[in-house]
Amino acid sequence: MKVENIRHSLAHILAAAVKEFYPKAKLGIGPSIENGFYYDFDNLNISENDLPKIEKRMKEMIREDIKFEKKLITKEAAKKLFKGEKYKLELIKDIKGKATIYKSGNFTDLCKGPHVKSSKEIPFDSFKLERIAGAYWKGDEKNKMLTRIYGLAFENKKDLTSFIKLLEEAEKRDHRKLGKLLDLFHFSEIVGPGLPLFTPKGTIILDELQKEIERICREHGFEKVSAPSLTKIDLFEISGHAKKFSDELFHVSSASSHKFALKPVQCPHHTQIYASKPRSYKDLPIRYMESNKQYRAEKAGEVGGLNRVYAITVEDGHTFCTIDQVKDEIKAIVNIIEKFYKSIGLWDNHWVSLSVRDKKHPEKYIGEEKDWNLCEKILKEVSDEMGLEAKRMEGEAALYGPKLDFMFKDAIGKEIQIPTVQIDFATPKRFGLTYVDKDGKEKPPVMVHRAVLGSYERFLALIIEYFAGAFPVWLSPVQVYVAPISEKHIKYAKTIYKELISSGLRAELKDENETISKKIRQGETQKIPYILVVGDAEIKNKSVNVRKRSKGNIGEMKLDKFVETIRKDIDSKN
Amino acid sequence: MKVENIRHSLAHILAAAVKEFYPKAKLGIGPSIENGFYYDFDNLNISENDLPKIEKRMKEMIREDIKFEKKLITKEAAKKLFKGEKYKLELIKDIKGKATIYKSGNFTDLCKGPHVKSSKEIPFDSFKLERIAGAYWKGDEKNKMLTRIYGLAFENKKDLTSFIKLLEEAEKRDHRKLGKLLDLFHFSEIVGPGLPLFTPKGTIILDELQKEIERICREHGFEKVSAPSLTKIDLFEISGHAKKFSDELFHVSSASSHKFALKPVQCPHHTQIYASKPRSYKDLPIRYMESNKQYRAEKAGEVGGLNRVYAITVEDGHTFCTIDQVKDEIKAIVNIIEKFYKSIGLWDNHWVSLSVRDKKHPEKYIGEEKDWNLCEKILKEVSDEMGLEAKRMEGEAALYGPKLDFMFKDAIGKEIQIPTVQIDFATPKRFGLTYVDKDGKEKPPVMVHRAVLGSYERFLALIIEYFAGAFPVWLSPVQVYVAPISEKHIKYAKTIYKELISSGLRAELKDENETISKKIRQGETQKIPYILVVGDAEIKNKSVNVRKRSKGNIGEMKLDKFVETIRKDIDSKN
Repeated sequence: MKVENIRHSLAHILAAAVKEFYPKAKLGIGPSIENGFYYDFDNLNISENDLPKIEKRMKEMIREDIKFEKKLITKEAAKKLFKGEKYKLELIKDIKGKATIYKSGNFTDLCKGPHVKSSKEIPFDSFKLERIAGAYWKGDEKNKMLTRIYGLAFENKKDLTSFIKLLEEAEKRDHRKLGKLLDLFHFSEIVGPGLPLFTPKGTIILDELQKEIERICREHGFEKVSAPSLTKIDLFEISGHAKKFSDELFHVSSASSHKFALKPVQCPHHTQIYASKPRSYKDLPIRYMESNKQYRAEKAGEVGGLNRVYAITVEDGHTFCTIDQVKDEIKAIVNIIEKFYKSIGLWDNHWVSLSVRDKKHPEKYIGEEKDWNLCEKILKEVSDEMGLEAKRMEGEAALYGPKLDFMFKDAIGKEIQIPTVQIDFATPKRFGLTYVDKDGKEKPPVMVHRAVLGSYERFLALIIEYFAGAFPVWLSPVQVYVAPISEKHIKYAKTIYKELISSGLRAELKDENETISKKIRQGETQKIPYILVVGDAEIKNKSVNVRKRSKGNIGEMKLDKFVETIRKDIDSKN
Repeated sequence: MKVENIRHSLAHILAAAVKEFYPKAKLGIGPSIENGFYYDFDNLNISENDLPKIEKRMKEMIREDIKFEKKLITKEAAKKLFKGEKYKLELIKDIKGKATIYKSGNFTDLCKGPHVKSSKEIPFDSFKLERIAGAYWKGDEKNKMLTRIYGLAFENKKDLTSFIKLLEEAEKRDHRKLGKLLDLFHFSEIVGPGLPLFTPKGTIILDELQKEIERICREHGFEKVSAPSLTKIDLFEISGHAKKFSDELFHVSSASSHKFALKPVQCPHHTQIYASKPRSYKDLPIRYMESNKQYRAEKAGEVGGLNRVYAITVEDGHTFCTIDQVKDEIKAIVNIIEKFYKSIGLWDNHWVSLSVRDKKHPEKYIGEEKDWNLCEKILKEVSDEMGLEAKRMEGEAALYGPKLDFMFKDAIGKEIQIPTVQIDFATPKRFGLTYVDKDGKEKPPVMVHRAVLGSYERFLALIIEYFAGAFPVWLSPVQVYVAPISEKHIKYAKTIYKELISSGLRAELKDENETISKKIRQGETQKIPYILVVGDAEIKNKSVNVRKRSKGNIGEMKLDKFVETIRKDIDSKN
């Protein structure tokens, strides 16, 4: 028996139980979903405290051996049956032919099934009402917001338990929660959702990430450029983004009739830097990188935390090169990606997608057929020669060309896609970019688009959750924390603190009048990699007592020795 | 005799000469201005090639001993006199009482004077028609654009000559011209004016400036934060900027009804980072800094080069502190300003403005009278105690409080205002910011606003012109340039180049097949601080031959020695 049938049937039983307790609640819809089910209700004013009693009643119903019976009835009969249920009546209107209903006990739903035959088939210990959320009727924000009750459901208790554990782990690691606890970023109601404000600590992490990715890319010849976020819309009309991103484009205007667009991508601006002077084959490849904001008018209901924001800081890069150079360039970029993700520790679980066009929808893409085929061929060869074993994924290409996408697993095993390498013959042609080749002729360069780190916001969310806030030393906003045992040790603690700062370390001094165990606990809560405890013994020996995160006390040592130890951690990205 | 009378009379003579050559030209207005005069004409289609003949005719007229005669006539008589001169007729309409006219030879103008008595008084060798420009009638862009002829005029030839020299110097140093020559930034017609694209070389300078200013400010406890450019308008309604910047505000919208504003200032966003958690007196001062874009809807006609752009990268900072801490904080910031501008070499010619309210226009400001007075008192004390000798300037205060502004002289002696320190009691109150004081009570902090470098775009324009493109070594996009004498020296040049790069220097290898003198010339045109010439002798001696910018050949040395030399330059900001 399929678990979907169990889930879907539980949705009906949930609705039946809710209607018993709250007869005035109006029914929305109730499908099975990944890991469980939900049901939407209007006119239902409950809190999560009400869920246990509903769940209890559901379990009673399950034990009652309720049969699920399917019937076909006329639309007229359906209208009569669901009188007063305005959402069901709205659905009935759109039905062509007869309406399918399912009856289970005293409860009847407009529904195509399938379901279990009897509630007996439902293992009553392997489901759980999970939470309440708001959800627009038909998912449209212009419609009324209904009350959605989510349930988890599995085939057996073991699966439910391990999934709940995973959820708890995810909650513990939730970047919104840890972001607040560790004081990394903040959302202000006056500024608005989707617009994170990064605190000093959050900004340190963003800066360190930027320095590291720029360092790696610079080694490969990428040069940093800086383009404004604004542009005349003309730029995106030429590039094709005005059409592709028409809904997500932010338009900018003023009292005195300015008209601009905020960039949803970086590439068109970079074409204009390329176009700023004549180029020769001798200059190629030219590689630009930029870590700057781009803007997308995401749906208000979809922004949340750092994963989806309006202003996205994107680590983006473009190589302009000859066709002969494309393959080596892509290989070099794949190596950059490997280097960076290995250093973060995410590389082990990756797989690669060769993302190609959906040939049934040519209107979604720009560029010429022969170029698309050549690009695909090149990417396939790269995959083969580098042993990437890229899986071909139809319909996942970019506007202008196919790409290699790299997929990783996050802290709770969910798949995320960040780095990408894309070949683009179309954009340079659209902008009339050229270089003078050896034969003296003007030719269009090829553009290779790449993101390594991608969106800084999304990347930060990822690594907060991946490390559960216990960042490697090089990324830790506070790397060392000096805790004097009592007031009389503060003076010595200060000299230690100052020496750490002048060694270029990010240190904090904990000089409040608190017990040493409380000071240590606070440092541990903040997930600070090293806590230096100093008291009489340390003053006498001109040393520090070192506590390492998750290792505990690793002993007393001279400050020089400690600085050497932590430097090693930083350099090795531990 | 006043030079203004000479200038104004020259404007009339210019108009008389133009009307002789182009009788169909219609007269606008023709005042005296700083350094000269202009006259506006409609229906005048000429180029700068036509100026010499007009100037020649003007000189003839001056020699003719033309008398300037003033008359008062009725508005009716004036209307008759200026029949066909639509702009004059428009001006006559607004005259109350009688109209004043000036007659000089065959030319009569509607004009209040004063003028010279006779053209004989005008030294005919100390003026020059300078250029032609477009100018809207009455300066209003809704009106027609007229043709403006500018002239320079001084009391004697010497003053004219030295002013023209200054202009030539300014043109040579013009940041738009040098920005192109040195490949620092670019304006794309597709992106639009007022929206500079910074090339790799320009971005290096911006990055170096940012690193340096952040380094200095970090020493004083400033912490970097990062806020989005977008916000709900609510933020600026509370801060008062929505009203103050109503015309300059960019509004952001999307197809799916988002409504945001682009920030014209950084301070309101920083209040929201402060407000992200409870603060105690023990936490203060809290100092935030940010180098990020802000946006102002400048008038289309006023943007140009880097001095006025739509997207301004601003180096901005805010300190939240107690009233007791304000004075020390301001002193510390003044010291930062002094340190930074001394390192650039601009400090010697500065003066300081104590910019206070215009008490006649209280509607331009927010905040309470007593706070304004206290702030002024504090700034005055800072000025006295630090020997700043700040001049009191009425009406130059910020929206929320008085400030100290620092004025410097640019390359051609023009005054520019960049750094500023401002006290603000009003904004924290508006946003309800608080800290818990020693007595357990919640109190509003004081905000100190400061900019050291200000707008990166304007600062870059300033230093391009100030250094005439010959940047100090630490700011030079290319610090060293390796020039092999001939093809057989390329291999050695490459090893030198690689060693320079791995020493962390910004080096370029000049390996084209050109003569060594051409290579050196190209390096000099690019104003590269050091050119290393390598040939047989250098290969034999494992050395480099060093040419220093503006010094010429400073001799052969080992590479280590050279790296040491250039490192010293970089560290000392030479």
